[in-house]
Amino acid sequence: MNLTFDGTSVQGGNEARERFYDARGYGRPHDGGVDLAPVEVAHLLFRGDIESIHDSRPDSDDDVDFESLLASTAVSEVEFFVYKELRDRGFYLSPVRNTLNSTSGAAQTPVQFQVYPRGDGPWDDTIAYRVTAVSERATVDATTLCRLAYDSNGDTGGTAVLAVVDEESEVTYLELTEPTVTGSTDHDFPPFAGRLLSDRVLVPEPPTELHERAFYGQPLDRDDEPVQLSLIEAASLSNRGLLSLDADGPAEDSAEIIDRGREVEGERFDRRLCVYNALRTADIVPKTGFKFGADFRTYANVESVDNLGHSEFLVRALPPAHSFVPRDLSLDVRLAHGVRKRMLFAFTSDDDIDWLSVERLTP
Amino acid sequence: MNLTFDGTSVQGGNEARERFYDARGYGRPHDGGVDLAPVEVAHLLFRGDIESIHDSRPDSDDDVDFESLLASTAVSEVEFFVYKELRDRGFYLSPVRNTLNSTSGAAQTPVQFQVYPRGDGPWDDTIAYRVTAVSERATVDATTLCRLAYDSNGDTGGTAVLAVVDEESEVTYLELTEPTVTGSTDHDFPPFAGRLLSDRVLVPEPPTELHERAFYGQPLDRDDEPVQLSLIEAASLSNRGLLSLDADGPAEDSAEIIDRGREVEGERFDRRLCVYNALRTADIVPKTGFKFGADFRTYANVESVDNLGHSEFLVRALPPAHSFVPRDLSLDVRLAHGVRKRMLFAFTSDDDIDWLSVERLTP
Repeated sequence: MNLTFDGTSVQGGNEARERFYDARGYGRPHDGGVDLAPVEVAHLLFRGDIESIHDSRPDSDDDVDFESLLASTAVSEVEFFVYKELRDRGFYLSPVRNTLNSTSGAAQTPVQFQVYPRGDGPWDDTIAYRVTAVSERATVDATTLCRLAYDSNGDTGGTAVLAVVDEESEVTYLELTEPTVTGSTDHDFPPFAGRLLSDRVLVPEPPTELHERAFYGQPLDRDDEPVQLSLIEAASLSNRGLLSLDADGPAEDSAEIIDRGREVEGERFDRRLCVYNALRTADIVPKTGFKFGADFRTYANVESVDNLGHSEFLVRALPPAHSFVPRDLSLDVRLAHGVRKRMLFAFTSDDDIDWLSVERLTP
Repeated sequence: MNLTFDGTSVQGGNEARERFYDARGYGRPHDGGVDLAPVEVAHLLFRGDIESIHDSRPDSDDDVDFESLLASTAVSEVEFFVYKELRDRGFYLSPVRNTLNSTSGAAQTPVQFQVYPRGDGPWDDTIAYRVTAVSERATVDATTLCRLAYDSNGDTGGTAVLAVVDEESEVTYLELTEPTVTGSTDHDFPPFAGRLLSDRVLVPEPPTELHERAFYGQPLDRDDEPVQLSLIEAASLSNRGLLSLDADGPAEDSAEIIDRGREVEGERFDRRLCVYNALRTADIVPKTGFKFGADFRTYANVESVDNLGHSEFLVRALPPAHSFVPRDLSLDVRLAHGVRKRMLFAFTSDDDIDWLSVERLTP
């Protein structure tokens, strides 16, 4: 069989098209023949379906085998391991060519593979996954992850997946989606007074609903009062005019609490307050996520703290320019999975938040 | 009852000694009376055992009650919440005065409480825990944690515990110990050749023992060969003269692999290689910890990969000057616990490593 490699793709004739494309979903039809991407050829070489290909470039007179193709720049190891892993799982998939990003020249993370539902192939219209393959050593920025997640909500179809290849070539799949952030916890209570301590606010005589229904604060002891509020909770309540300190008025109270928050926590306080307020506005209760290494754990539907359901999300508030090391993503997502929660990232800019849900996926 | 506060401690007479020290382990005897630390008094005030204390300082004419004591600088909220939490759990404990660090003026993290075994008190000789209390917003440096862990191995007695108070005043206890790092995995195999790819080494004809017994690398496919090695594994094997590339000699091979490692991973590669080598020298097998967000997971006793036991440790390699945010410690330790492993930190300096084990503890 005559297969020639021009450095970017491999061309085969009618027989190659029948054998590789028609029968097993490799490549794409071209002039009656077939066009194969280097990663597809690497897989065919690896499996022994073809033994070598002819390199048609003038400065090359050797044929190309699996090892030399993998050692060349035509195929990245990361690409190959993800392609092989998905094939091993019984999927047909196609490399995506001419992605939006490749023209811009930016060091972005484009979609590399479109994966068809099991049993389907490139001749069908449906896409199961749109896969971006990265090395565990790569960094992936928040805006890229959000774009990948949000794009898959559109008409392109297919779940956005980040496939991370670790140093031992194992692949971890992370599903990226735009979450629905909404709950039903909405309880009213009258305004009340508190005292600002160094890292919390003490409320000697809290309204009953404050903790028991709306799940603000914690009782200082087993009894219901006094209740202590975290600075985040206090800032949010004071901003809504519900909490007053023994001070000069609501606006000053709120500023005093926020100042204290920034003092003990820096700009992280503003970021967390922004996310806290957005969650409360969505009728979701955020409580500390400290035991899970997160900013918040959340409860969507609280009727009473005596009858608290399982908390659904772990939330991490991050700046919009955040760059992820895949290992940290892996840590967060693994932990959330282990405690039966979903990991949400909230990227805050001014008062706008981009939400991203990341979950482990087994394709 | 006459109790006077001089700003640093509270003095009581014979009656107070009998009631608080003799009966319930508060304070320490002094001149027939008792000396109480502010945090102990705060707890007595909080419980209603005393209603207020007289402030003997000239510029003060108010009596001190619970709220005003907690709002003052005499008692930190962090101290109070840890003291109260341990009392609630049924322990007697004493504030440690004049710690080594308080004289140096350094912003260190001293031991704040010695906690007696349940049923024991300050009149006994045994100490169950030596507790350092910090806020979740504090940073704690690696050298402090190691010193706390290693000290408790000495004759001071008691397990070293870091008690972290989160923003909602919940306390998380972390046990700090110096781990024993030793295993029994020691298999010989003959030297072999490999090919350096961009982020791994391909070994076309590996000795059988390489993967199957010594658990280096991963087969590229379901068959035994070829085997791929991570750069860390390759650097270690090459350094021991077991792996050669198609290059100029063992020393050059090793340097080439290490250079590649630094290229893709920066100085983290050296740190991880140092820890990798130490673990292999201790007859423990390190494999990637990526799925757990760690540097390595380890297997102490590998006879054969077909019969692999549960991996015991998750290991994170860090620089000796590392400063921990308690939230990150909480994340690592919680994850390790969830997958039934112990979290180890390895602080590398030159070729020396300080090991620290951190585990969740319920006192």
